[in-house]
Amino acid sequence: MKIASEKTIERLSLYRRLLRVAKGAGQMSVYSHDLAEMVRGTAAQVRRDLMEIGCAGNSKKGYDVDNLIDAISEFLDSDDVTPVALVGVGNLGRALLQFFESHHPKLKIVAVFDNDPEKSGRVIHGCRCYGMSEMPVVVAGKKITVAVLAVPVGAAQNAAKQLEEAGVRGILNFAPEPLRVGPSVAVENMDMTMALEKVAYMARQNNSKENGAK
Amino acid sequence: MKIASEKTIERLSLYRRLLRVAKGAGQMSVYSHDLAEMVRGTAAQVRRDLMEIGCAGNSKKGYDVDNLIDAISEFLDSDDVTPVALVGVGNLGRALLQFFESHHPKLKIVAVFDNDPEKSGRVIHGCRCYGMSEMPVVVAGKKITVAVLAVPVGAAQNAAKQLEEAGVRGILNFAPEPLRVGPSVAVENMDMTMALEKVAYMARQNNSKENGAK
Repeated sequence: MKIASEKTIERLSLYRRLLRVAKGAGQMSVYSHDLAEMVRGTAAQVRRDLMEIGCAGNSKKGYDVDNLIDAISEFLDSDDVTPVALVGVGNLGRALLQFFESHHPKLKIVAVFDNDPEKSGRVIHGCRCYGMSEMPVVVAGKKITVAVLAVPVGAAQNAAKQLEEAGVRGILNFAPEPLRVGPSVAVENMDMTMALEKVAYMARQNNSKENGAK
Repeated sequence: MKIASEKTIERLSLYRRLLRVAKGAGQMSVYSHDLAEMVRGTAAQVRRDLMEIGCAGNSKKGYDVDNLIDAISEFLDSDDVTPVALVGVGNLGRALLQFFESHHPKLKIVAVFDNDPEKSGRVIHGCRCYGMSEMPVVVAGKKITVAVLAVPVGAAQNAAKQLEEAGVRGILNFAPEPLRVGPSVAVENMDMTMALEKVAYMARQNNSKENGAK
């Protein structure tokens, strides 16, 4: 398996999404500068990224949209559907379950975990809910290596530790809490509180610039 | 208003969250290297960030936790509560409404918008839901400059345009779709699909490293 930088993976994921939109609109080929404009990057960057996955464009026609989607998918996706666990089935967890169900065919949430005994054994949006103590058995049995963490703040570190011990090697963390895990576990933080604070700060900057300019 | 880089704002937001946890645990002072460890950064970076908001530590005792929280809050927050709009009250929107309600006292969702006429006029988690056509009047009346966008893919660009025209200057975007807005609007993308793809890719890398090492 070839190793790409995190930033490259992010961009490839974004290119593919935009290429699918372009394909849906009937577009057959695309230039690096078109893709660059869509992702607010440079054409040179786009060409480097695509070269890394073995795709070269044609100076006349650019890149073939279908080929590019296939090449990115071959690079990013596993051959099979990747089974994913969701931990924490509160309001946010349920919303994420539905969101990911409809947005990604190759990543599938196959088990949900919650420490509420009332939820254990229930089927939520088509997914069986297990107690936290069942995690080692279920994660091993379903060969789960990826998890989405949507537990309340204060419960995330403990859940992450349990996931790591059960064999999970990548965690998408929605709890506003940094996780301490070993080097063999990748963590991506979806820090919604920080993001909203940042946007509010920048909105205030933009607003005072406008008012100052008047 | 002083202008800080986006990355600095992100780190200040994170420091404050960790300082509040430390304060809750009874900690009175903190060293730059403690904060650095918590955010996986360097002590020099922490000191630079805190210098930027006028805070200098003491080589013996480090920084006073209370002072630091106050200084960061003074820098990041508006004096008043910042009114926020939420656009799109599907499952994700509802979950976000609850999430932000409980996580941030200075940022308050005061109005929700949805294009479903059945939702118009209803009160959802204490928030009045308005139709999209009411946006200009409501946004101006409530002095809203920040919005959370949780509409389905395909509807985001249009909603962002309407928000911009109504006077919103910062958008936290949960739709997996890049937004085209003017330079006076800050956009922060919470790209959950991309984040999950990335984590899945890295988990696969970690897994094959472990298996290769065996």
